[in-house]
Amino acid sequence: MLGIPAEPRARSGRLGPNSAIAGGVDALKTVSAENLSPQEISRLLARPRIDFSSILKTVEPIVAEVRGEGDAAVKRYTSKFDRVELDKVCVPIEELPEPRLPDDVTAAFDVAYANIRAFHEAQRAADSSVETMPGVVCRRVTRPIGAVGLYVPGGTAVLPSSALMLAVPAQIAGCGTVVLATPPRPDGSVTPEVLYCAKKAGVTHVLKAGGAQAVAAMAWGTQSTPKVDKIFGPGNQYVTAAKMLLTNSEAMISIDMPAGPSEVLVIADGGAPPAHVAADLLSQAEHGPDSQVVLLALPGVDLDAVQMEVSRQCDALPRADTARKALAHSCVVQVSGKEEACRISNTYAPEHLIVNVEDAESWLPALDNAGSIFMGRWTPESVGDYASGTNHVLPTYGYARMYSGVSLDSFTKKMTVQSLTYEGLAALGPSVAKMAEVEGLDAHRRAVTLRLGIN
Amino acid sequence: MLGIPAEPRARSGRLGPNSAIAGGVDALKTVSAENLSPQEISRLLARPRIDFSSILKTVEPIVAEVRGEGDAAVKRYTSKFDRVELDKVCVPIEELPEPRLPDDVTAAFDVAYANIRAFHEAQRAADSSVETMPGVVCRRVTRPIGAVGLYVPGGTAVLPSSALMLAVPAQIAGCGTVVLATPPRPDGSVTPEVLYCAKKAGVTHVLKAGGAQAVAAMAWGTQSTPKVDKIFGPGNQYVTAAKMLLTNSEAMISIDMPAGPSEVLVIADGGAPPAHVAADLLSQAEHGPDSQVVLLALPGVDLDAVQMEVSRQCDALPRADTARKALAHSCVVQVSGKEEACRISNTYAPEHLIVNVEDAESWLPALDNAGSIFMGRWTPESVGDYASGTNHVLPTYGYARMYSGVSLDSFTKKMTVQSLTYEGLAALGPSVAKMAEVEGLDAHRRAVTLRLGIN
Repeated sequence: MLGIPAEPRARSGRLGPNSAIAGGVDALKTVSAENLSPQEISRLLARPRIDFSSILKTVEPIVAEVRGEGDAAVKRYTSKFDRVELDKVCVPIEELPEPRLPDDVTAAFDVAYANIRAFHEAQRAADSSVETMPGVVCRRVTRPIGAVGLYVPGGTAVLPSSALMLAVPAQIAGCGTVVLATPPRPDGSVTPEVLYCAKKAGVTHVLKAGGAQAVAAMAWGTQSTPKVDKIFGPGNQYVTAAKMLLTNSEAMISIDMPAGPSEVLVIADGGAPPAHVAADLLSQAEHGPDSQVVLLALPGVDLDAVQMEVSRQCDALPRADTARKALAHSCVVQVSGKEEACRISNTYAPEHLIVNVEDAESWLPALDNAGSIFMGRWTPESVGDYASGTNHVLPTYGYARMYSGVSLDSFTKKMTVQSLTYEGLAALGPSVAKMAEVEGLDAHRRAVTLRLGIN
Repeated sequence: MLGIPAEPRARSGRLGPNSAIAGGVDALKTVSAENLSPQEISRLLARPRIDFSSILKTVEPIVAEVRGEGDAAVKRYTSKFDRVELDKVCVPIEELPEPRLPDDVTAAFDVAYANIRAFHEAQRAADSSVETMPGVVCRRVTRPIGAVGLYVPGGTAVLPSSALMLAVPAQIAGCGTVVLATPPRPDGSVTPEVLYCAKKAGVTHVLKAGGAQAVAAMAWGTQSTPKVDKIFGPGNQYVTAAKMLLTNSEAMISIDMPAGPSEVLVIADGGAPPAHVAADLLSQAEHGPDSQVVLLALPGVDLDAVQMEVSRQCDALPRADTARKALAHSCVVQVSGKEEACRISNTYAPEHLIVNVEDAESWLPALDNAGSIFMGRWTPESVGDYASGTNHVLPTYGYARMYSGVSLDSFTKKMTVQSLTYEGLAALGPSVAKMAEVEGLDAHRRAVTLRLGIN
């Protein structure tokens, strides 16, 4: 259940809430922002509480058994949940044969790889160095995180794009151990599309498991699985619950970010073709029944045409049922102009933000909170999901207010380094000694005064 | 209780474990790395498990009451724990009068402010922009986190340095709302040294409360306290438990990093004066009874002299009792050379790493995991704790393997932005459509093909 309260909140709009149009799609609920208080808009766009307490009850024993038994427990749960009897749990990637795929498929992956690589390479920042006072040099130096774990979902979808999004920055960062976990296919093999991307992007180990058991195996290490320092990637609620349970725990791992259902907010003006607006809304809605899509419609948008296109295009989708469920708790908000649109978007803090307006670039300074932004008429969300170069692992659920999406930074940490000469310490030392005195930490003071031979 | 197992693990060393030397200080436990397996070294340097389960039972009702009642609950707990009856809970900083402090104290703070500001200013990175393909421009743009909460401990120590370390990068980042929480003094006022630093560094609100009630007030917001997006800063176990309880919860906040007891690892060679080595070990030991200090002694270090200095200097400290407790679970490891020293240090991943050796700079490339590094003969840890310019909020407990210390980045987030021209979409679109087809996401494909008028 997602976000939108059960009772209709529409107060205006040419279409009432949930009026059926055509096909199996109800019209998107439509409201006008001018009739709503900021609190009402927040409630309208509220995401549901993510309650992991019942899922944690399932996940905790799995994590404990993998910790205690290692591979044996991973095999048991893979047999139970994936109906696969594993021979080996985690293998060095060179033991897996090069997959055979059609040329047009590998060509598409190669384009995505090149663009993702180019954009993430450009995120490499020179280490900063400042002489804050004569003889006092302070630096930041970057180091790769030694061992990382990448979760790539399997199940209903084959997701080689997630393998690229996670493995490419790990490769650029220079992480020594890169474990990719993904549920095995019924015959126990690794999805060839995922394997192709993993090999290309320098993955070192493949863990043929999914769910909480895969996360636990990477967090604790098993007989065959290297223990990692940080775990990345999207997954179902069991994967997310295991990541939340293990992060900052005795397992000593961190995670990329909290995860919730995927979402898009589209800002459209009268010049945005209704068919394109509808296609963008649907491309998010087909992700899952709990996806949320929001359209902020500026004056001039033909809402009837958008609704008609949503209905028409949705009926033609293989995943129409999924999309319909997502659309049922999505909505259209009519906004008066740029300022109102940006205010609502910044409050919602969408994972994906499509700005399908004239002169989109002029909107950017007013946009504060979003995972990834898609600018103008020719930038559908799909390009960022796959191959423009940006990362598709992004903060959901409003976490774009304080989290960034996955980037090269996510695979490194920065150490600060200070180097003082005698002259530097002589200049800075008295200030340090005075502050230590104020804070009542005498040994701190003496570490300076002893070196300087003062009192 | 910290880290080191109860039974003596020493197998060699000129001094046996816990042999009393002088004053009230037992000799630091001393072992030789050559006699220990990597596993034994890991066990020797293991930190204790941080078990928050009992503390959480105390913290949960406090957090719930602050959420439900707001200021009234904060006042009640401040009366109970701090024995102060608050008139106002959180006030705009301009309502608080400029504090009066001695000139030499404000001069020291001003030096620290200038250096911290210079080093964190230098962390400002230009937004990256790459044309990954003709007509496909990808960028990262940086935005401040809108509202942040800074926890500055009170209690046994006055810690204006933490106010500077947290508020200066928030000021540079441009965070609009900066709430500083600190326990009030017995008369209900704010510690003047903290207030001076807060005013100088652009804090907007002061919350006169400590403990879990302060963290909860910032996470949920109260009648007088702005709700924040991210909470920073060190604190006691109740503060830490409240941060861990609230991060990524329904309160929608994140935190800076997990926190554990402070620690230092010193690498010393024969040229490091024993008095300086001892002073550095003690400056960490005086932090708290659960602090951990480790000395990696290269050949040539006069261990007897170091032990003697530790004992002599410790006896003279106002906080000698605290330091003695920390020293009781600390140790000296004799190492054969640079390679062994770096391996052990990287495995331990210390919060603070002092490299007191000849030609320290040549060691840096081999050092991978540390919060902050202090290079050479003239760089005691105290300089980074106060005024060199680096941040003193650093990853403890081995989290330096995957976390960075607090920096300008901690107060910002980065959004990715992609802008495609028609030509860009025409060039990239077929690859996107192919990948969407592989992943079975037809609406993703159509958002591209519809715009291009292809199928």
